[in-house]
Amino acid sequence: MPYDVIIIGGGPAACAASVYCARKQLKTLLVAQSFGGQSIVSSDIENWIGEPHISGLDLAKKLEAHVRVYPDVVEVKSPEKVTKVGSIKCIGEGESRMCDFEITSDKDTYSGKTVIVASGARRRRLGIPGEDQFDGKGVAFCSTCDAPLFRDKKVVVIGGGNAGLEGVIDLFPYASEVYLMDGGPVLKGDPATVDEVKKNPKLREVILNAKPVEIVGDSLVTGLRYTQDGQEKLLEVGGVFVEIGSVPNSEMVKDLVQIDDHGQIMINFQHARTSHPGVFAAGDVTDDPYKQNNISAGDGVRAALAAYAYLQNREKKSPAEERHNA
Amino acid sequence: MPYDVIIIGGGPAACAASVYCARKQLKTLLVAQSFGGQSIVSSDIENWIGEPHISGLDLAKKLEAHVRVYPDVVEVKSPEKVTKVGSIKCIGEGESRMCDFEITSDKDTYSGKTVIVASGARRRRLGIPGEDQFDGKGVAFCSTCDAPLFRDKKVVVIGGGNAGLEGVIDLFPYASEVYLMDGGPVLKGDPATVDEVKKNPKLREVILNAKPVEIVGDSLVTGLRYTQDGQEKLLEVGGVFVEIGSVPNSEMVKDLVQIDDHGQIMINFQHARTSHPGVFAAGDVTDDPYKQNNISAGDGVRAALAAYAYLQNREKKSPAEERHNA
Repeated sequence: MPYDVIIIGGGPAACAASVYCARKQLKTLLVAQSFGGQSIVSSDIENWIGEPHISGLDLAKKLEAHVRVYPDVVEVKSPEKVTKVGSIKCIGEGESRMCDFEITSDKDTYSGKTVIVASGARRRRLGIPGEDQFDGKGVAFCSTCDAPLFRDKKVVVIGGGNAGLEGVIDLFPYASEVYLMDGGPVLKGDPATVDEVKKNPKLREVILNAKPVEIVGDSLVTGLRYTQDGQEKLLEVGGVFVEIGSVPNSEMVKDLVQIDDHGQIMINFQHARTSHPGVFAAGDVTDDPYKQNNISAGDGVRAALAAYAYLQNREKKSPAEERHNA
Repeated sequence: MPYDVIIIGGGPAACAASVYCARKQLKTLLVAQSFGGQSIVSSDIENWIGEPHISGLDLAKKLEAHVRVYPDVVEVKSPEKVTKVGSIKCIGEGESRMCDFEITSDKDTYSGKTVIVASGARRRRLGIPGEDQFDGKGVAFCSTCDAPLFRDKKVVVIGGGNAGLEGVIDLFPYASEVYLMDGGPVLKGDPATVDEVKKNPKLREVILNAKPVEIVGDSLVTGLRYTQDGQEKLLEVGGVFVEIGSVPNSEMVKDLVQIDDHGQIMINFQHARTSHPGVFAAGDVTDDPYKQNNISAGDGVRAALAAYAYLQNREKKSPAEERHNA
């Protein structure tokens, strides 16, 4: 028997969808690499509504705990990574096309009547020489995790959005000096956070319109080479934190649903629908312009309720359609 | 000086919008009749994501506390009721029309560059004889609040959606027998909740396809007259709980933005925009098909970020536009 719903992911969107599927008594499978989503690396989330302060880890625990309240209807596979979602046993065409879905993970294969893709996004890398070589030897992607390793060192944070600014704030208690580098002409993060960063004396310099070229070092990082105004420069630092955004985890459905130029799943916002009937999506994997935990949770709820409505409609139509196609 | 943003409401949408406006350092005014939104009457919310159990009152406290973290940028007026939102000092036409807004409350008048309407909805009433007369004398609209007053009484809950089912569950520990009445052929609430209700021996009968006609009594309610299959019947009960949905609190903007046949503000879902530039809306007052706390919170975030983007654009355009119109 296929699952009613297979949810891919473990962040706010996936967990919210799971709770609502459980409330609707749907036979649900949730496959997650981990719980908590991208903000698990944050030491202090201040905008999860209702919680003025919560760490990413604590939020992850709260989300997982809520998912696990309903073991009778929600089966959880974690850590497990979905690699492919395909459609099988399809009948009908266009908007009334109705399929089952085969979900392949790194451990098993499952089938479901609907799929909610809430697989989030992952950190973008610079893709320059030295980044891989010095990963863990001065190059870091998680300021919350690694800031304490850079005590009394000069470090540069690359990325002037909120993630980069928060990286800088994480580093202030440890680093001796912090540089902040961005490719654009202004810092894109919240003005409140920009102000907070700029008034700290440990912020040595904001380097704008700059393009990283190479991370250099011997056994550990010793500097970052970058270009600015057509000139190549060397910044002598012992740490390089990369905070330049994310890539949607949409590879597993790239042959199934419409994906935009950024790799994001294109959705109808009102009903969390993708281009394939029966496949819904929510959270940072979609083309929603605002990537925020509470929006992801809300859209996860929307996806679950839309999947529920789709399943009720499918039950009604199913026997007739099958006769029609017999 | 006008506020950057005036937020109307105190539920999850309004509070979420407020927190995000604060994070963006916008000069914000929040005008709320009360905090917590419609679910404040719920004794046990099980689907506020991350909290397997929370009372409506506790959720209201958490939301208000988060709003009050930012007193430097967010001014709170509560209890206070907005009665009218009008546009003033408009320049431009169509999509590039740009106004200030004048907000009239029962206490004062304010002006703002943008408005986020998150005023929610209120309980619908039956509109039959006896409903007003026996309000508080056996007729009730809040099972969480009033269930304990009906110890050892026979009661009927009108409304077979989730609100009605939860009303029945609230009454089980107190009432001697509970009837559940709905106008449709099936109960529309979550199957999980329907099952829970049906297996309780205190549920005396589910009365479907029934239309309430009059609430009767002397000093207190003694019965409900209703029609079913063309016949008029009398149900002898000491309590009538009305749980038949809600009416959007959109009256204050009915001359400003497009409203649908149900009184809901019509929005563009992706950016929480109404038909009037600079006026955004989120939560139960909108035509969002799914009325849920987490969706409201997510859409409140969306409205705040959309208002912020609008304001940034307005700053850029404003001097040129004014010259053009001078």
